[in-house]
Amino acid sequence: LKRVLITGARGFIGRQALRPLMQRGFEIVASTSGDAANADPAARWISCDLLAPGAAERLVAEARPTHLLHLAWYTDHGKFWNGRENLPWLAASVQLVDAFAAAGGRRAVIAGSCAEYDWSAPHPCRESSTPLRPHTIYGTCKKALLEVVSAHAARAGVALAWGRIFLLHGPHEEPARFVPSLIRAMLAGQPAPMTCGLQQRDFLHVADVADAFATLLDGAVTGPVNIGSGEPVRLLDVATHIARRLDGLALLQAGALPARPDDPDALYPDVARLRDEVGWAPRLSLAAGLDDSIAWWRSQDTAGVAK
Amino acid sequence: LKRVLITGARGFIGRQALRPLMQRGFEIVASTSGDAANADPAARWISCDLLAPGAAERLVAEARPTHLLHLAWYTDHGKFWNGRENLPWLAASVQLVDAFAAAGGRRAVIAGSCAEYDWSAPHPCRESSTPLRPHTIYGTCKKALLEVVSAHAARAGVALAWGRIFLLHGPHEEPARFVPSLIRAMLAGQPAPMTCGLQQRDFLHVADVADAFATLLDGAVTGPVNIGSGEPVRLLDVATHIARRLDGLALLQAGALPARPDDPDALYPDVARLRDEVGWAPRLSLAAGLDDSIAWWRSQDTAGVAK
Repeated sequence: LKRVLITGARGFIGRQALRPLMQRGFEIVASTSGDAANADPAARWISCDLLAPGAAERLVAEARPTHLLHLAWYTDHGKFWNGRENLPWLAASVQLVDAFAAAGGRRAVIAGSCAEYDWSAPHPCRESSTPLRPHTIYGTCKKALLEVVSAHAARAGVALAWGRIFLLHGPHEEPARFVPSLIRAMLAGQPAPMTCGLQQRDFLHVADVADAFATLLDGAVTGPVNIGSGEPVRLLDVATHIARRLDGLALLQAGALPARPDDPDALYPDVARLRDEVGWAPRLSLAAGLDDSIAWWRSQDTAGVAK
Repeated sequence: LKRVLITGARGFIGRQALRPLMQRGFEIVASTSGDAANADPAARWISCDLLAPGAAERLVAEARPTHLLHLAWYTDHGKFWNGRENLPWLAASVQLVDAFAAAGGRRAVIAGSCAEYDWSAPHPCRESSTPLRPHTIYGTCKKALLEVVSAHAARAGVALAWGRIFLLHGPHEEPARFVPSLIRAMLAGQPAPMTCGLQQRDFLHVADVADAFATLLDGAVTGPVNIGSGEPVRLLDVATHIARRLDGLALLQAGALPARPDDPDALYPDVARLRDEVGWAPRLSLAAGLDDSIAWWRSQDTAGVAK
């Protein structure tokens, strides 16, 4: 029996993870802070605010999982980088892993972040050698969680892997973020301002990110694993692809927005561990992934949801 | 108004901190997980199990502190180094500092540990340059707490200092630890086994540790501060002093116990920050402090309490 407790199961990544988990033979207990009504019937759903006192222990007691895929965190666009909400999420995550281990859980995979790395270090970011020096409270809390649960898991007999997410896009993304903001502006025939766009980044479609997490959970690799395509691109290249597909080149205003002071020139991973040890590769090319995102936002636009 | 919330107020250090806090003009709200009956009437006492769900927020709401002195943690002798109890204590401490900051708290001092340092680095341990690389879950959780609350405090307008405790002794110490084990054996006329005793350590009397924390809280220094005497000694020298005072040299069996595999040869701090920036120095010499500990254990022995 493999029974996975997935947190954030109706979130951006979580909702995409249910199918790949099922395909790998997991029985799924899905936790969401929101409404579990009309959610995917392939999972058993539990409505749970992980920040509520005692919630983590109750959730584990109810789910009785052999595996844990912990994706839930505070993600309000812009505010999540340095919001105080990161502290209760760290506390709740520590309690969740502690309860999971104490209940005999066997393997846990947790969502980490490229924000753990020192962004001023040479790229690509490598799990084995790039220093961890977060520039944000979000990154600081993720790094703290990694260090604490790693030390505990080794002694508690829990196999722990840690998927470091870089950039991603896809259905249900926060509309104000980079890819949706461009797509939505161009779909509306409005100017699409951006920074100079020379920053190098690594993008994955969210369905691929979720598939990578499911693969990681179903394997035996432990420790941090970068989740990325391994093919860094410039933001301007991403924007140009979108603009071409939407006949929006005239709307694209590269350089109209100032670079944020903390925005690094480069932020992309080495993916050797993911490719060679986990044995995973993206199914969608950058172009195919962006085309899917465009199609999804177009469908939302047509339905009048994202106006 | 200076109103301090002190946690662990009936603990080894906490019980010694009330008087120096009062002397510095603090109004004291004292929290203990144990019984607050018959506790020092100079403080307002709150019985609070900080690990109970929601406890940290309720405690802050009830105490309404301007200052926080957070000493409470899991300290069971031997077990605390790698016990899972460190995880809920980390979670509760994060919640406590978050609640304190959210309620407008001005200054917090938290008990850190020499266990945060890389014990294999050259000594003395310096706050500014010795790498943090904990060898235990206890040290890992303390280091994680430091990094998270430091990042948060800077943005939340809370002045945060972090007192790194080295070795200490005194009244109410856990009887199985080094100094009490020797004193009690010799008081009973029984053999007092120890390791070879060549390890270099820094000892303070617990009353001095508590006074250092009160001084740190009442000042303006932020960041980590080593709490020590600055005069490292060998364990054998400490043992010999105790044996001489108790006519127990014949009972002292140096080398009878094997060195623990993780026991470092050296573990002592540079105390320049404490001495020059905080402006604090121990009031008790090593000999005077040990004599006080001997006197206290003798009084316990006479009373039949520590048999």
